Amino acid sequence: MQGEIIAVGSELLLGQIANTNAAYLSRQAALLGVDIFRHTVVGDNKDRLRQLLIEALSRSEVILITGGLGPTKDDITRETIAETLGIPLIEDETSLLHIRQFFQQRGIAMSQNNQKQAMIPQGAVVLRNPSGTAPGFVVEKDGKEIVVLPGPPSELRMMFENSVVPYFKEKCQGEEKVILSRILKFWGIGESKIDEALSDLFEAGSNHSIAYLFQNCEVQVRITAKGKNSNEALRMIAGVEKIIRARIGKYLFGADDDTVAEIVGRELKEQKMKIAVAESCTGGLLGSLITDTPGSSEFFEGGFITYSNDAKQSMVGVSKKTIGEYGPVSQEAAAKMAEGAAKNSGAQIGISITGIAGPGGSEKDKPVGLVYIGLYWKGKTYVEKHLFMGSRERIKYSAAITALHVVRKFLQSGNHF
Amino acid sequence: MQGEIIAVGSELLLGQIANTNAAYLSRQAALLGVDIFRHTVVGDNKDRLRQLLIEALSRSEVILITGGLGPTKDDITRETIAETLGIPLIEDETSLLHIRQFFQQRGIAMSQNNQKQAMIPQGAVVLRNPSGTAPGFVVEKDGKEIVVLPGPPSELRMMFENSVVPYFKEKCQGEEKVILSRILKFWGIGESKIDEALSDLFEAGSNHSIAYLFQNCEVQVRITAKGKNSNEALRMIAGVEKIIRARIGKYLFGADDDTVAEIVGRELKEQKMKIAVAESCTGGLLGSLITDTPGSSEFFEGGFITYSNDAKQSMVGVSKKTIGEYGPVSQEAAAKMAEGAAKNSGAQIGISITGIAGPGGSEKDKPVGLVYIGLYWKGKTYVEKHLFMGSRERIKYSAAITALHVVRKFLQSGNHF
Repeated sequence: MQGEIIAVGSELLLGQIANTNAAYLSRQAALLGVDIFRHTVVGDNKDRLRQLLIEALSRSEVILITGGLGPTKDDITRETIAETLGIPLIEDETSLLHIRQFFQQRGIAMSQNNQKQAMIPQGAVVLRNPSGTAPGFVVEKDGKEIVVLPGPPSELRMMFENSVVPYFKEKCQGEEKVILSRILKFWGIGESKIDEALSDLFEAGSNHSIAYLFQNCEVQVRITAKGKNSNEALRMIAGVEKIIRARIGKYLFGADDDTVAEIVGRELKEQKMKIAVAESCTGGLLGSLITDTPGSSEFFEGGFITYSNDAKQSMVGVSKKTIGEYGPVSQEAAAKMAEGAAKNSGAQIGISITGIAGPGGSEKDKPVGLVYIGLYWKGKTYVEKHLFMGSRERIKYSAAITALHVVRKFLQSGNHF
Repeated sequence: MQGEIIAVGSELLLGQIANTNAAYLSRQAALLGVDIFRHTVVGDNKDRLRQLLIEALSRSEVILITGGLGPTKDDITRETIAETLGIPLIEDETSLLHIRQFFQQRGIAMSQNNQKQAMIPQGAVVLRNPSGTAPGFVVEKDGKEIVVLPGPPSELRMMFENSVVPYFKEKCQGEEKVILSRILKFWGIGESKIDEALSDLFEAGSNHSIAYLFQNCEVQVRITAKGKNSNEALRMIAGVEKIIRARIGKYLFGADDDTVAEIVGRELKEQKMKIAVAESCTGGLLGSLITDTPGSSEFFEGGFITYSNDAKQSMVGVSKKTIGEYGPVSQEAAAKMAEGAAKNSGAQIGISITGIAGPGGSEKDKPVGLVYIGLYWKGKTYVEKHLFMGSRERIKYSAAITALHVVRKFLQSGNHF
């Protein structure tokens, strides 16, 4: 099935927020066998939405629409769809009850405006909204499926998983066709090298394709395959993956939703070790990334944000002499910080970051982006020197991700520096 | 002028990344007087892009196109535009020279594929790309401006600021018309209260509109105005802003690009004070947010990531007794953590966060999302209790942002708890 996504909202057109709903819906639609070939954003404007709906109905079998279901006058999606399809809106009693309860439970008076959120095109399948007031709905018209979902991402996602997936699964029984994709994640290999190694694979067959993306110093290679069913698609993906692994497998560190932080967490748990951090230019970002993984208290002890020179001395024992001779951004300081992180917290492993995030703060021989990453284990330290490019936030992020890869490589190599 | 944005890239359609370029370009276009009324994403597909270009040319005066200018076979934007407009591509010598130099400087052999990046539609204005290989260009056709930019956000942004802005400024001399917007940021006021206080203002005049958005516990109210020139638009915005301030000004904390972290930084610098953190469930995120502000070493000492109970004892002096009696997530622990953060780092102010980020870890009377935030100054501590909703990452973020607001309110109130 061919589909498209329409997002309604002036906040998107004004650039106040990015269209993350379209990205989410694209990924989900593929799993249901709906091949998304267009995203469109329009403002909260009846005429423009109507025109776009007419276009979309002429070319797509599935139309996913998000946004504009709120209670205010701005919100015109519901009415515009009903008008364009020539279907009257009727009040859905269950939805109205749900909206009333939503406000009651919160001890807030329900505004008159919220009542219109219970209006649904006649004959539509209502999609319940457990985390908000606006129900969604699916209308069928001339064999096309028009799925309408609220704009807030958390409401949209819950509704999609709870209601839209079962709806489509039931519809598509028998005529299964799915698109699946798998992402392989690489570290330490550049764009030109990927190109060289995989160029013949980019010439996609009709039922599979590969593409790559550089993100946060990591390279993601995406394999996409279409099949009559999941098994067929998965078999195709496995075939391509095998070839890729044979060529550049040594740079592979994960797949799909794997993050380097999670992988580090898993390895630490397996080896029954805990880690501690000492962060200067990243200001705590590395610790924050490590603790994005649920259950991180099993392998993360904590650490020190040694932003000032005083903090480097008092918290992790970088001596005044070291700072005076080599500076706070140096191999020597990074080594001492990693050691102090471990010893002063009781963790087995210490990881440190010290660098110049910019835009100011550069010195002779020490440009913005210069970062030292230190690793301590069993009395030994290891330090890597890096030069990252980009904005302050980008340099911080690159440094933290790189530090995680330093730990990952150490843990996965049988604890060799 | 009416404009639209087209992004080309299968990675967008597959949902691998969100279309942040469209958000950026929308904001920038408004400043040049171009009113964006549609965003569209299509894949790297010649037929679909051609069809979309024909549609866009029929309805928009300005078309901003991004993506698909790379060296690989996938990248079809350049050729498709030239074909659709009926303009031949010719090699631009300066661009070719730039691409050659780009590789030379990096000591990498230039691939034959990169040569095609120097092909530009005849008569187009070439836009230089200081941070990448693909030049952009502007083609005029039947009075319409077609602006073509590379997909990587950093290249796109630099090119837009360096080349597209001056291009349009020169074009539009005399017939100035601009759209400006201003964002007012509020803390501590809910959606229904905003609605109540400002409902009459949402009924926009023809030349201005207001809208609001809840993001990260903060509320953003956006005022947008159209004027013959900047002065006229700014005068309109100021008029609306005055009314809003009169009604809910006490919740206002910033405007436009202000972040609470920056405001805290400014206040600390003015008062010549330094702050230190003690973070448990946020794992360093608060420190990371504080250090996103350039020059934060002037007001940020550093701090402690006291993730484990041992770390809470050894780093910031939360006693075994306190943890045993009240638990690590308690008012008592938060108070002691804030005190320890300040005293053990030498900063005047200590700020602490301890809570349950979930999804596991809840206990009787201590649900997921429960967070205590502590503030220490001159021998006194103050603790706030919060209950945040959502995912682990959302709870971490809400806690860190709320902690910054606790500090902001303290600093802005003449240092009263």
